[in-house]
Amino acid sequence: MSTTSQAVSGRVFAPYSVYKGKAAFSVDPVLPTFTKMDSGFLRVKRKGVILLTFWPAIGERKYNWEKRQKFALSPTEVGSLITMGPNDSSEFYHDPGMLSSNAGQVRKSLSIKALADGNGYFISLNVSNNILKTSERLVVPVTAAEFAVMKTACSFALPHLMGWDRLTNQLPQSGPERSSKVDPRYLDVEWDK
Amino acid sequence: MSTTSQAVSGRVFAPYSVYKGKAAFSVDPVLPTFTKMDSGFLRVKRKGVILLTFWPAIGERKYNWEKRQKFALSPTEVGSLITMGPNDSSEFYHDPGMLSSNAGQVRKSLSIKALADGNGYFISLNVSNNILKTSERLVVPVTAAEFAVMKTACSFALPHLMGWDRLTNQLPQSGPERSSKVDPRYLDVEWDK
Amino acid sequence: MSTTSQAVSGRVFAPYSVYKGKAAFSVDPVLPTFTKMDSGFLRVKRKGVILLTFWPAIGERKYNWEKRQKFALSPTEVGSLITMGPNDSSEFYHDPGMLSSNAGQVRKSLSIKALADGNGYFISLNVSNNILKTSERLVVPVTAAEFAVMKTACSFALPHLMGWDRLTNQLPQSGPERSSKVDPRYLDVEWDK
Amino acid sequence: MSTTSQAVSGRVFAPYSVYKGKAAFSVDPVLPTFTKMDSGFLRVKRKGVILLTFWPAIGERKYNWEKRQKFALSPTEVGSLITMGPNDSSEFYHDPGMLSSNAGQVRKSLSIKALADGNGYFISLNVSNNILKTSERLVVPVTAAEFAVMKTACSFALPHLMGWDRLTNQLPQSGPERSSKVDPRYLDVEWDK
Repeated sequence: MSTTSQAVSGRVFAPYSVYKGKAAFSVDPVLPTFTKMDSGFLRVKRKGVILLTFWPAIGERKYNWEKRQKFALSPTEVGSLITMGPNDSSEFYHDPGMLSSNAGQVRKSLSIKALADGNGYFISLNVSNNILKTSERLVVPVTAAEFAVMKTACSFALPHLMGWDRLTNQLPQSGPERSSKVDPRYLDVEWDK
Repeated sequence: MSTTSQAVSGRVFAPYSVYKGKAAFSVDPVLPTFTKMDSGFLRVKRKGVILLTFWPAIGERKYNWEKRQKFALSPTEVGSLITMGPNDSSEFYHDPGMLSSNAGQVRKSLSIKALADGNGYFISLNVSNNILKTSERLVVPVTAAEFAVMKTACSFALPHLMGWDRLTNQLPQSGPERSSKVDPRYLDVEWDK
Repeated sequence: MSTTSQAVSGRVFAPYSVYKGKAAFSVDPVLPTFTKMDSGFLRVKRKGVILLTFWPAIGERKYNWEKRQKFALSPTEVGSLITMGPNDSSEFYHDPGMLSSNAGQVRKSLSIKALADGNGYFISLNVSNNILKTSERLVVPVTAAEFAVMKTACSFALPHLMGWDRLTNQLPQSGPERSSKVDPRYLDVEWDK
Repeated sequence: MSTTSQAVSGRVFAPYSVYKGKAAFSVDPVLPTFTKMDSGFLRVKRKGVILLTFWPAIGERKYNWEKRQKFALSPTEVGSLITMGPNDSSEFYHDPGMLSSNAGQVRKSLSIKALADGNGYFISLNVSNNILKTSERLVVPVTAAEFAVMKTACSFALPHLMGWDRLTNQLPQSGPERSSKVDPRYLDVEWDK
């Protein structure tokens, strides 16, 4: 019983990790947060993301987690990723200090580039940091099978990132029967403003 | 504990919103309602819809929510949307006063039109109101990535709109074992009327 | 509280219905049944089906439910349906009395035939009953959008028909940590017989 | 009440089985296991797999379960399977004794080979055992419909094998409202290391 409630309320770590020669990366969903409104209803406060974490190899099968770099895909960027065909490429640009006094000081770009034979992708993260005067590039080649896992898992996660999985927890709302035989075409919903 | 039950029973607002230069729109699932029958069983009373809400821009990054217009996609219209290819276009017509004394007074049409390069769509809502003598047109261009989010989220939501997600909450029905080795091909279900 | 438990334990009716000129049909998932084994574990006793019910029109927007005919798609037949392209056709044959003394007396066939323009299908159910000396044919044309709803909903339902949705209800199994850095490739599972 | 908790905590057996002339095989998901960390959080200890079990025919509609052979598909191998087109083929190699003193003594390979007409696949499992001096080959032809069931069910199962379905059980995290109108692009998540 106590196990159940801990399982339900606790954070679960279940990253999908890919280890290759020069670097590794993991894919991990981060759920949205909610705010309770005065009405008692919940509203999504911050949407969820797919968090990509890259860290470099420092020897055979040895990796340096301390030098990890992160890139958080928004739901729309996830939409880009899950529609990529075997010959498509995508590039995303982030400024994690955007809208703050740190704007422009750290620039990140994530590139997903199809291999010429269509059997995989190069995924690379570039981070240039004007404060620390550093510029890093972490590249991981992924196979078509690994990218398929990423696409399937991200498609599964997308409604959860948006908060739409909350749909499944609603109680049925009962009310008086309306026995129209003609499809009412959901009139009420549209008529009200 | 009280948080859980509020989360479960409360309405959750989690629209997917797209803001562009002339207007914005949001996509929001509305769950079906159920009626309890004399047998104690539940029946879907009104199917769920995907509610699209459009509202106009009135300046840079300023929008007028008071002038919003709604369009509710039925499950079958959602079926249209989620099967659209990159070069397809669709148009839906609604009369929210249909079957009432207001029939024909408000006409709405939603048009989804592929861009010539296949990299997105123009989504436009036209509302002509004979009572108020108004005619409005709200247009939002969406990228392929934004449309992919809409398609994935609407595909996820569709079984919920239909009430089919209730399937997952059934208890197992136990009974005496039947140890036939040959596939009974579900004889009983078809034989009964 | 009582509403919840009734919602959870009660049967929910949520058919997807299509009404056309000559006939109507509905699509309705029927869940598997389970048997408890001596070990306390559950085993699927009878797999679920997608139940198709057809009934004829007897006038404008009037249908005769008493003359309904049923056809239950097995999981593998659902697999056929959900992979149909816009120009594909399928036909399924059932003998609901198979393996009993009624074998061969009632024959049913369901045909799904693509329209020449690829924008929909003719779905027809033929039932010939040697006992009653009757032969009936019920035909419903469906649009591409209606078929898309059927495919999406049946894809959603398929794992439930198979009993695989039970996967999601498992408790985590805790145990001593194993800190191998190399992927163990799931050795134990395969090594045991 | 007791039925519910047993249903939830107990193991459910729901294999998808295909019986053909020379052999049969079943497809069965095996969930991941979790470890509780010092923080109270859960971490995936061993990822789930799709377990394929093959066993030979020994007569008409008679099969020898004692001679079964297993092959466990990892999430990435499942990614390969679910992206196979009608003309694709795949082959997977396992050594269940890998990393132990039994390394190299048992070799397994699973081959999925498209039929020339694109209407199905030959699935064959080869097991050569140096200890027992045996070599076995079990082949089952599957139709396109049967393979579609496997792909749909494995796609459904994949996030569960990875532990990502745990996402759906989280409680909402409340907190003070932040009323920024501009998309904050998930700044915090990326800024922190």
